[in-house]
Amino acid sequence: MKQFINAKEDMVTEAIDGTIAASGGTLTRLDGYPHIRVVVRADWDKSKVALVTGGGSGHEPAHAGFIGKGMLTAAVCGDVFASPSADAVLAGILAVTGHSGCLLIVKNYTGDRLNFGLAAERARAFGHKVSMVIVDDDIALPDLPQARGLAGTLFVHKIAGAMAENGADLDACTLTAERVIDASRSIGMSLDTCTVPESPKENRIPHGMAELGLGIHGEAGIEQVASNGAADAISKVTDRLVATMSEGPHAVLINNLGAASVLEMSILTHSLLSGEITDQIKFIVGPAALMTALDMHGFSVSVMALSKGDDTLLSQSTTAPAWPGCNPVVATPVLPLPDGLSPVRVPASAHESTKAFLTKCCEQLIASKDDLNALDAKSGDGDTGSTLATAARALIDAMDSLPLADHTQLYRAIGLELSQTMGGSSGVLLAIFFTAAGDASSSGKPMREALQAGLDRMRQIGGANPGDRTMVDALLPALEALKSGTKPAALAARKGAQYTATLTTAKAGRATYLSAEQLEGHIDPGAEAVARLFEFLAE
Amino acid sequence: MKQFINAKEDMVTEAIDGTIAASGGTLTRLDGYPHIRVVVRADWDKSKVALVTGGGSGHEPAHAGFIGKGMLTAAVCGDVFASPSADAVLAGILAVTGHSGCLLIVKNYTGDRLNFGLAAERARAFGHKVSMVIVDDDIALPDLPQARGLAGTLFVHKIAGAMAENGADLDACTLTAERVIDASRSIGMSLDTCTVPESPKENRIPHGMAELGLGIHGEAGIEQVASNGAADAISKVTDRLVATMSEGPHAVLINNLGAASVLEMSILTHSLLSGEITDQIKFIVGPAALMTALDMHGFSVSVMALSKGDDTLLSQSTTAPAWPGCNPVVATPVLPLPDGLSPVRVPASAHESTKAFLTKCCEQLIASKDDLNALDAKSGDGDTGSTLATAARALIDAMDSLPLADHTQLYRAIGLELSQTMGGSSGVLLAIFFTAAGDASSSGKPMREALQAGLDRMRQIGGANPGDRTMVDALLPALEALKSGTKPAALAARKGAQYTATLTTAKAGRATYLSAEQLEGHIDPGAEAVARLFEFLAE
Repeated sequence: MKQFINAKEDMVTEAIDGTIAASGGTLTRLDGYPHIRVVVRADWDKSKVALVTGGGSGHEPAHAGFIGKGMLTAAVCGDVFASPSADAVLAGILAVTGHSGCLLIVKNYTGDRLNFGLAAERARAFGHKVSMVIVDDDIALPDLPQARGLAGTLFVHKIAGAMAENGADLDACTLTAERVIDASRSIGMSLDTCTVPESPKENRIPHGMAELGLGIHGEAGIEQVASNGAADAISKVTDRLVATMSEGPHAVLINNLGAASVLEMSILTHSLLSGEITDQIKFIVGPAALMTALDMHGFSVSVMALSKGDDTLLSQSTTAPAWPGCNPVVATPVLPLPDGLSPVRVPASAHESTKAFLTKCCEQLIASKDDLNALDAKSGDGDTGSTLATAARALIDAMDSLPLADHTQLYRAIGLELSQTMGGSSGVLLAIFFTAAGDASSSGKPMREALQAGLDRMRQIGGANPGDRTMVDALLPALEALKSGTKPAALAARKGAQYTATLTTAKAGRATYLSAEQLEGHIDPGAEAVARLFEFLAE
Repeated sequence: MKQFINAKEDMVTEAIDGTIAASGGTLTRLDGYPHIRVVVRADWDKSKVALVTGGGSGHEPAHAGFIGKGMLTAAVCGDVFASPSADAVLAGILAVTGHSGCLLIVKNYTGDRLNFGLAAERARAFGHKVSMVIVDDDIALPDLPQARGLAGTLFVHKIAGAMAENGADLDACTLTAERVIDASRSIGMSLDTCTVPESPKENRIPHGMAELGLGIHGEAGIEQVASNGAADAISKVTDRLVATMSEGPHAVLINNLGAASVLEMSILTHSLLSGEITDQIKFIVGPAALMTALDMHGFSVSVMALSKGDDTLLSQSTTAPAWPGCNPVVATPVLPLPDGLSPVRVPASAHESTKAFLTKCCEQLIASKDDLNALDAKSGDGDTGSTLATAARALIDAMDSLPLADHTQLYRAIGLELSQTMGGSSGVLLAIFFTAAGDASSSGKPMREALQAGLDRMRQIGGANPGDRTMVDALLPALEALKSGTKPAALAARKGAQYTATLTTAKAGRATYLSAEQLEGHIDPGAEAVARLFEFLAE
């Protein structure tokens, strides 16, 4: 099974129940399963005009996700891509309609028109005020007298819903809904067909092609076009829209047809808001999955010519869980980069003994290159020696530009030097070690404690504990023993390095991928480098 | 190209720009493209603790979508699945950190730890208060000392973000973030791998299998398991969670890994909230795409043991565009079906002349069965005659139960009878015709006008205009001519029916799929039936 569904016949009711369960008590449903699947606002008191919509399922979050204060009152859900029965629609109407009446918002598909239409007649026979609008925002087939209803329906839901919430009467809501329908245009594009549960997937779109002007039921688009990325896709879609758009400000809605990634939707939005209709776009809804076609890897763009007050109604708050909000399209000034990214180089200062000491340490590491590489070849990629030697050579070259007479600044300068000259994780970790040691030194800590503070920070960031087969196994005991002098420190470092040869599971770094047999008997090259430095110190 | 992207190297900056452009001015960025990609709160004044996070891209809407009042302050974005540089992180920290300091929230991946860690050191060297927490909520590999950071990170963002907004200091935010990390567990499942742009897609999951315990970078899960639908998937995931969960109330977060459909996510949510951990789940975040792995067809579930006050912080409002809210899990009472779904049958009443008239009309239709079928075979599926004959026979059978003496009720009763006995669109349309005629009759309209009101409604719902090659082409002129008597009406109906034979493009019904050659010279069967009825009336 290539989808997360259970039995096909329970698909729609389970999806509804999931939506209701996650709604925090704002949604409920009528007790009509399995045939009558009507989701309603839990707090509805029939005091205002009710908005009822629905149609086939497979378009989630439409329609149940748009139920809430300031938007829909009820959604009548059919099977996947099939209209609900007139009985189900009637149940929805009767459940939510009070004296203010009910507006049915129906997408232009024959089954939906007929079943909602018949239900409306039957509700009227009970004395209810019911009006019905048909949404036909699709522009894919300009000559088709019966244009389909697509994601532009959301404009109708939102604007009429906000009006009803604000107390408008049924006639006003109906007239506005009809005006919004007139003002709305939609068209979509997809790279693939959708997967109808338990039906074989249709593979009609060749690789490198896309379908333009498709519906939301897996029906083929009006044409197959080359797929050349996001900007090209948006341009093909907006070319069609522009041909039908009026002058003046518009709102745009960008809809994920199901399986476009959030990354792709953001890129499409960028292309849309920097493309040919940008100047007319004053408000944006999405990007979001609003009116999907199951898992279709595509998007649609809907535009709506704005009349006075529409922006306020679109932006009015609603409790509908799936409404992503409507934002003004404004240019936000980009902020300048902060100062401090180019590290302040402390002026160089001379200090002969420090220079001699540091240089000798570096020479030690350079001299150990081949040995350390050989050790690393047992447990890593064989370059620890080379990496350290390169860094050591760079440090020797930089020696005369370092603040050798100021130890606090010297730690930081070494950290900076290493972060810039030594690649890989170990470079960053040593940079952290020296930078943190510099911070500790600046707050007055003596050398040994400053180095311990550096080690603590390096361990926190690197995540290495004693026994993890890293340089920590040598450095930690060495710094501890340094309290008693350099000789005990050297002994402790060597003991720690030997200890790593007995550790057969690495818990950090590349050695984690090796088996016990591969590791046993070989000293960790980082620990070996530490031991050699402390042994040099003790001489 | 099978994805909506432009040049790969612009992917991340374009996605960021799209997110910012759709944010309504709440988000902006630093002027550091292409290497420094830092999204920040546009209204940030540095007065409170700043929350900085980030990591590789490809997890949208994480992390930029969670920037807003009450959540994150800045997000530092790397390339897809690659850590941002320490320089980029430092830019983010320096841009937003004031006297209250900065909390870095880092998912437990080596690159992120190192680069955020080094940036933190460098920021501290500037005198900033910076703390850093490492999120490791993955439970897929319980023995791994370095568990990955997954969607549980959202709990940390939300709770620490709400605290910071409420004025908590850096230490309090850090301690709480660490507590939330400790209390969070996540695991995911996927039916397919993700598509890394411009890389070949790895097809390692056989059909019928799923991967359990995967990360968010396309890395393989800990095991492949059989895929047996939504409830089974949830049960496999919650089995693992239960083994690591503490007693007591939890919040749950259900995350779309990228390309699961909204329908599937709702079904998974239903399974989750009716499965083995239901009793412990008091709050839910999602279902929503929160921490994705590009277009991975999968989901993850995160749980968090709630301490006192966490629910308030999780539920606190935020302006972060991608936060879906946190809802209490409450049982909503299902509402009873409304009265009125079983139509009230008006008591039968006798009226001999009406009975005789109706019966003869029905007999006319029955007698025309074969002729109408033959006509329909030219333009439809050849069953118009049979459909009408079946309905006519049912009406004759029901004759003695009809309110024959009350014309208003009779229209409605015929409408009801037709809606129940006559299949297809035409049955619904005729039911609408008679029900609407009944409504018009009940408001005092004489027969001809009542029938015209029925026709108006049927045309509105069915969408058929004169010239669309339907029964309307006969019925409309006939009802108009009926003002002058039955003979003119019959002539008008016949003329209208003949007219349909000249119409070579159908605009409604099945005939829309036929060519001009196929239609020309054939009368529409519905129009023919109307003409025959009026010709009978005129006799």
